[in-house]
Amino acid sequence: MIVVGAGFSGLACALALAEAGAEPLVLEARDRVGGRTLSRPLPDGGWLDLGAQWIGPTQDRMYALVSAYGLETFPSPAHGAPTLLLDGRPAAEPAGLAALLGTLDELAAAVDPAAPWRAAAAAEWDRTTLGCWLAATAGDPVTARYAGRLLAGGLLAASPDEVSLLQMLFYLRSGGGAGSLLGMAGGAQQDRIVGGPAALAQRMAAALPPEWLRLGAPVDGIAQDAAGVRVRAGDQVHRGDAVVVALAPALAGRIRYDPPLPALRDGLTQRMPMGAALKVHARYPEPFWRADGRSGVATTDTGPLTETVDNSLPGRPGGVLTGFSYGAQARALRRLPDAARRAALRDALVALVGPAAAEPEDLVEYDWSADPWTRGCFCGLVTPGSWCDYGPELRAPVGRVHWAGTETATRWSGYLEGAVTAGERAAAEALD
Amino acid sequence: MIVVGAGFSGLACALALAEAGAEPLVLEARDRVGGRTLSRPLPDGGWLDLGAQWIGPTQDRMYALVSAYGLETFPSPAHGAPTLLLDGRPAAEPAGLAALLGTLDELAAAVDPAAPWRAAAAAEWDRTTLGCWLAATAGDPVTARYAGRLLAGGLLAASPDEVSLLQMLFYLRSGGGAGSLLGMAGGAQQDRIVGGPAALAQRMAAALPPEWLRLGAPVDGIAQDAAGVRVRAGDQVHRGDAVVVALAPALAGRIRYDPPLPALRDGLTQRMPMGAALKVHARYPEPFWRADGRSGVATTDTGPLTETVDNSLPGRPGGVLTGFSYGAQARALRRLPDAARRAALRDALVALVGPAAAEPEDLVEYDWSADPWTRGCFCGLVTPGSWCDYGPELRAPVGRVHWAGTETATRWSGYLEGAVTAGERAAAEALD
Repeated sequence: MIVVGAGFSGLACALALAEAGAEPLVLEARDRVGGRTLSRPLPDGGWLDLGAQWIGPTQDRMYALVSAYGLETFPSPAHGAPTLLLDGRPAAEPAGLAALLGTLDELAAAVDPAAPWRAAAAAEWDRTTLGCWLAATAGDPVTARYAGRLLAGGLLAASPDEVSLLQMLFYLRSGGGAGSLLGMAGGAQQDRIVGGPAALAQRMAAALPPEWLRLGAPVDGIAQDAAGVRVRAGDQVHRGDAVVVALAPALAGRIRYDPPLPALRDGLTQRMPMGAALKVHARYPEPFWRADGRSGVATTDTGPLTETVDNSLPGRPGGVLTGFSYGAQARALRRLPDAARRAALRDALVALVGPAAAEPEDLVEYDWSADPWTRGCFCGLVTPGSWCDYGPELRAPVGRVHWAGTETATRWSGYLEGAVTAGERAAAEALD
Repeated sequence: MIVVGAGFSGLACALALAEAGAEPLVLEARDRVGGRTLSRPLPDGGWLDLGAQWIGPTQDRMYALVSAYGLETFPSPAHGAPTLLLDGRPAAEPAGLAALLGTLDELAAAVDPAAPWRAAAAAEWDRTTLGCWLAATAGDPVTARYAGRLLAGGLLAASPDEVSLLQMLFYLRSGGGAGSLLGMAGGAQQDRIVGGPAALAQRMAAALPPEWLRLGAPVDGIAQDAAGVRVRAGDQVHRGDAVVVALAPALAGRIRYDPPLPALRDGLTQRMPMGAALKVHARYPEPFWRADGRSGVATTDTGPLTETVDNSLPGRPGGVLTGFSYGAQARALRRLPDAARRAALRDALVALVGPAAAEPEDLVEYDWSADPWTRGCFCGLVTPGSWCDYGPELRAPVGRVHWAGTETATRWSGYLEGAVTAGERAAAEALD
């Protein structure tokens, strides 16, 4: 059995295969495991999570893995009050936002995350971009803009104009609703992992015999016939009974298959671009915002950053403020030369958290869209109008080729939890 | 100089390079030239055009090439009256259709096909799918459905729900407006080429020294540095000063680049899926529809086929009726087993052209979506919400890598004419 990709999905798949008595070979393009997680160590012994970082209630497999591999979680900081800026000024939550989220949750209740295309209104929701829906529903432009940034941005790392209402509803349903997805304590941003999720990925990998994992082995081709599969990485060819491709569909589509993938499965890979987020960590001598009774959690409807959080580590000196830019704003930032982009990021931090944010000791970014083995984050998103026709291909195996990756999860799709459960589902399927 | 792809764009590029004194090497994945054109010879000496087949007024480069390579054109048959079925019954053109097309042409006048993202209303048009716009604008559901099939289907080979209004307006403007694009005589479907466009591609290729063209050489990787480019196809590596990638963006994105493509250029390749058309040729002993005073040109708002044309060859016995299915309908047909699909196609022909269509001598399809070196037709389409952010990457060279292919054309994008002019533009650019 061969597994392509050593992110959380591929690792969970390989571990499940091993547990069932199989001897999987995991091929990973990079020189590291962990996929869309990456830790940068800090001189003081702390670290920054440059990719995925949070887990929260009902993400049971993740908590179980953290515990099984001897790691611990800690709660996201909760000091003081959040900041909300509308049109650049401190404001209360826009009138109508709660009702809007309620409406979305109600609509999402009609979506089966295993088959969004079966919802009675699926075709209408698929052709309607979230941007159009919000413009028609939100009541006023500020609420529409703010909600669009919070939902399409904060949850999908996209602009509301590039995702369908159906994609949004699928995601809301898959993650237990707007409250669950947007929340810190009690929600998807509740806890972090000591050492970062990348540390967990390393321990998961270390639980496999070393010869079962090949790093620096980007897979070029997958051939299958009645005898089995042949997976090619450069000049190595590996044979097996089946293969689990634990990559986002956009990347899975770049492998050459023999026989070629069926038209509709290939078409899906053409219609699931990766989201676009820019995550920036600003390090300060201390979490200065707490002195003002502020939490460091800030959101806004304007400017390049949609939100910030307090990402400081407990029991360590120094404060970390992490900002997020999504979709169109993230792409606009990426078009700027380095110095101009970093200046824009500092200005945006000042606008959100005050003048003390102007001079961070360090400003750390990592561009997942430029990483050739990721090409965007948080995850792949089905383009408007495509869920209904191509959705059925998302998990359907093609002969001996099975599909994992968080995009294929029905619960917590787009999250580490979804990656793990998808890998375990694909392992069971491939063993069958 | 290296050219990737020997479709019309790559061939035109190579010929332009040769004319300027360069010695291009053309690498083609298939064992033939011609890209999305393909002729199937018939026993009587005639042929079927399985891919692109028409040229029309203002496609000046195509007429010039036909003439330069000693080929001829002939007009599409024009015998009798067209058929229009609405809700399965003969009907007049829906009230409001002409006004709707007029409105679209008016909006399209504000779109510069070289920079659709600069239109004042670009963001709104980009977030609005054509399906939503038609539902809001067409006045009644039948007109909306019919117009959606005619425009998104007939022009883009897509469903109105999966393309933005901006993509539609770009295409309308690029092809000279709705009348020009939809028309037979006087429009884009005016003429055919004797022997088919594939015959022209073969003559263009034959004008290059044979050692300048490698068939069966799918390109895997493109590396560039200060010294030049290295283009890898299997175990061959070819060197040059620059490379022109004359592939649709979705396929160009499957090549491995070193250094990796910039994030935004790669992101574009994730957001330009290929259209989906099913073209079926039904051969009969004679063009029976003419006896009834009908042209064989039929359109309808329901059923798997959106339109048919009389594709019979002049001066030869036998009649050819060619049907087209697009987007969701084409994908639904592809989900059927062969026998069921062919039965559905025969039934649809009967509905459109009468009971005499029930028993064709032959029913010939070619699935461009299943072809691994094409993966859809007519062309790549920018997904909703993506023109504004990613459009600027469409033609922008990346160092020594230049982009051709009909998708990059500003005039007659999506057509053979656009392929040729894009190839010639890229040649000039690469020589610079």
